[in-house]
Amino acid sequence: MARTRMVVVGGNAAGMSAASQARRRRGPHDLEITAFERGAHTSYSACGLPYLAAGLVRRWQDLVVRTPEQFAERDVRVHVRTEVEGVDLDARRVHVRDLETGRTRSEAWDELVLATGAEPLRPAIPGIGLPGVHGLSTLDDGIRFAAAIDAGPRAAVVVGGGYIGLEAAEALVHRGVPTTVVERAPQVMGRIDPDMGALVGDAVRALGVDLHLGEQVEAIEADGSGRVAAVRTAARTLPAGLVVLGLGTRPRAGLAAEAGIPIGETGAVVVDERTRTPLAGVWAAGDCAQARHVLTGRPVNYHLGTIANKQGRTCGVNLGGGDATFPGVLGTAATKVCRVEVARTGLGEAELAALGVEHRAAVIESTTRAGYYPGAARLRIKLLAERRSGRLLGAQIVGEEHAAKRIDVLATALWNGMSVHELVDVDLSYAPPFATVWDPVLVAARKLAEQVGRGPTGGSGG
Amino acid sequence: MARTRMVVVGGNAAGMSAASQARRRRGPHDLEITAFERGAHTSYSACGLPYLAAGLVRRWQDLVVRTPEQFAERDVRVHVRTEVEGVDLDARRVHVRDLETGRTRSEAWDELVLATGAEPLRPAIPGIGLPGVHGLSTLDDGIRFAAAIDAGPRAAVVVGGGYIGLEAAEALVHRGVPTTVVERAPQVMGRIDPDMGALVGDAVRALGVDLHLGEQVEAIEADGSGRVAAVRTAARTLPAGLVVLGLGTRPRAGLAAEAGIPIGETGAVVVDERTRTPLAGVWAAGDCAQARHVLTGRPVNYHLGTIANKQGRTCGVNLGGGDATFPGVLGTAATKVCRVEVARTGLGEAELAALGVEHRAAVIESTTRAGYYPGAARLRIKLLAERRSGRLLGAQIVGEEHAAKRIDVLATALWNGMSVHELVDVDLSYAPPFATVWDPVLVAARKLAEQVGRGPTGGSGG
Repeated sequence: MARTRMVVVGGNAAGMSAASQARRRRGPHDLEITAFERGAHTSYSACGLPYLAAGLVRRWQDLVVRTPEQFAERDVRVHVRTEVEGVDLDARRVHVRDLETGRTRSEAWDELVLATGAEPLRPAIPGIGLPGVHGLSTLDDGIRFAAAIDAGPRAAVVVGGGYIGLEAAEALVHRGVPTTVVERAPQVMGRIDPDMGALVGDAVRALGVDLHLGEQVEAIEADGSGRVAAVRTAARTLPAGLVVLGLGTRPRAGLAAEAGIPIGETGAVVVDERTRTPLAGVWAAGDCAQARHVLTGRPVNYHLGTIANKQGRTCGVNLGGGDATFPGVLGTAATKVCRVEVARTGLGEAELAALGVEHRAAVIESTTRAGYYPGAARLRIKLLAERRSGRLLGAQIVGEEHAAKRIDVLATALWNGMSVHELVDVDLSYAPPFATVWDPVLVAARKLAEQVGRGPTGGSGG
Repeated sequence: MARTRMVVVGGNAAGMSAASQARRRRGPHDLEITAFERGAHTSYSACGLPYLAAGLVRRWQDLVVRTPEQFAERDVRVHVRTEVEGVDLDARRVHVRDLETGRTRSEAWDELVLATGAEPLRPAIPGIGLPGVHGLSTLDDGIRFAAAIDAGPRAAVVVGGGYIGLEAAEALVHRGVPTTVVERAPQVMGRIDPDMGALVGDAVRALGVDLHLGEQVEAIEADGSGRVAAVRTAARTLPAGLVVLGLGTRPRAGLAAEAGIPIGETGAVVVDERTRTPLAGVWAAGDCAQARHVLTGRPVNYHLGTIANKQGRTCGVNLGGGDATFPGVLGTAATKVCRVEVARTGLGEAELAALGVEHRAAVIESTTRAGYYPGAARLRIKLLAERRSGRLLGAQIVGEEHAAKRIDVLATALWNGMSVHELVDVDLSYAPPFATVWDPVLVAARKLAEQVGRGPTGGSGG
């Protein structure tokens, strides 16, 4: 029997997880694996880029999990700086361009894995293409950004107050660069509720960042030499030798769309729980693919390394001859802005309102350790539950050291469809260096349990 | 209608939680609450005692959550230094002795709550009653122990390598006292498996503690003045100006047994999920009471503040006219020995063997943060699952900073009866300062999932 030819488009988390899992299960005599990557690097931690910029990670090489050479040793051929420009579904070939030489060629596949990732939003702001305006999406971006900080800019402006923008701002402040963050929305961290976002805004300001909320960037201005010099909003002009864009990302699904591979309502590629697209032999995983929200059952498209790795692994197990399913996501995410940790899982107030779910919220303040134990830090937990049933629907945490990882308990509770009444009883650990005797998670559940019923769940559950 | 008279025996976690919850729901016109406490203090953190001894907590008052005077303000009368010597079930009275004056009297009750706690094991070792031999069970013990360290002993011996013994040893080392731990068993921390206990033993030695395993204390010897001077085992004589006993605890159920209140197979008082004993109007909660193990359905008796608080609250809600149940426990516990954190939940290998459950184990090594992120520390996770079904049965963690609290995710998974196959998929959080992209919990689940089936669970499940 002829070898199966697996072609992977995209050499990072999802694509290379798929390649590795498939190779683990099927040897090179049986399965040929070829991956194409536009950038110069494979399998790196994009989440680590702000720490490279901050100087907390000293060598960019430390962010690389596995190089093309290391993949080659495992019989996975990776072509970097090579872009897939077209997918021919009838001929079952991809058309690729070597970005160094400009040469094009085509490659045949029996199984195609789309793992093209996400691309940063770049709205049509005048000057957005100027030298000195940085994205922070790829390792190449991160290396350039770190070098730009090394050059010692007098001031920096970060456009966008999501987690990438805030992590970039922290890196700049850490390196001694006076930094301003401009965010169009009235709060930072749009994926958490405004009351919790306000705490993060306070933390960002406490870091020394000049934070302007509810302000839209109108233009990025150049100096006489054509380099970035300032960022202009309706309210002010902010001098800047360095600009970072953190305006969010969208799925990089153009290649799929052009080939006629179905795109879902989120703008990402439609896949089932085995990561198959509706077209035989075509798979998708990671930021470019949809996933199912465990609570709503609806398709979502979050750009998180956790999901990319899990979908990639699912894809690779299936291509390797196994049978894996990926049941879905809760949108669990965490980040750290200086001392302040932020985490969320499930649905927020705006999402619940949009879904028409009648809910209640409780917010509690507690400490990360016993109050008398040295280093006890404050944390705030917000829980959301369905009003009638008490079913847990979402959770958010803002606090200091040791706060964020508590979100995982709440994610596990959500995953299992627990009500806050049930959550109150769970046997969580206690010791003075780690928690109060009633862990803050349980205190929050107790408070919310008093405000909600014990009836059957509503119709929105998955 | 006459007021209901509620009498509580024991003024700490379980008893005073019951009193507080009952008072919250029923005013003093309706419910009279009287508590009796042998010691001088109420509602303190017994788990904080080692940190008082270490000097990390500076004033013993910081460990007290609520004083008798504060209870009195809420119409809860507490008599400290007052021992309940007998319960008359027919007359529905308790006989009490004022330990200061020696006077006895009796008090009537309509509802009786037994919250007598646990007592340290004191085997019949010659010299165990000598001056200079300390327990570490009550706040009074802790105050005396701290004072004894202040006196500057030249050397200390801790008898018993459970968590209290190790925490005491750490406190002594922290205060500059050369310390030896003698443990009869071949490992420290008997409630975790030997392979994980060995890591803790290494950490204890790294702290500078002289650790002797598999050695039983034969006698505690006095100097000429009748004070403790040495601890003798079969192998050696260890000079000691201070001895700490950490030999474990047993339920303090003598009062209940003498009164004819049913005692279970664990030696603790039999209660149902509402914390009622089989005798009308008699309740029990905390260390002196049994609880149901969520996995086995069998009665257990763990001495943990978390359980005491939850059972006490359940009791108080019910006595306050509400309807609360306490579904049971997993034995989730955590502690910290210097930099090393230890946590466990569910069943260990020996327990599974005793229950005849065919199981598999997986152990993984990972890091608490992304490997490249500063401060990433090692942790080891051990998971146990039923061989046939893959149902998670137990988990243990040993690691450095930020390791222990991950046990709560595993406790929540156990609580929901998850299999390791299901656990692999749960959407846990990731950011480089908090985790690897596959959280170590998921890595462990993946490893174990490869070794177990997906069949129906066996007969041992609760």
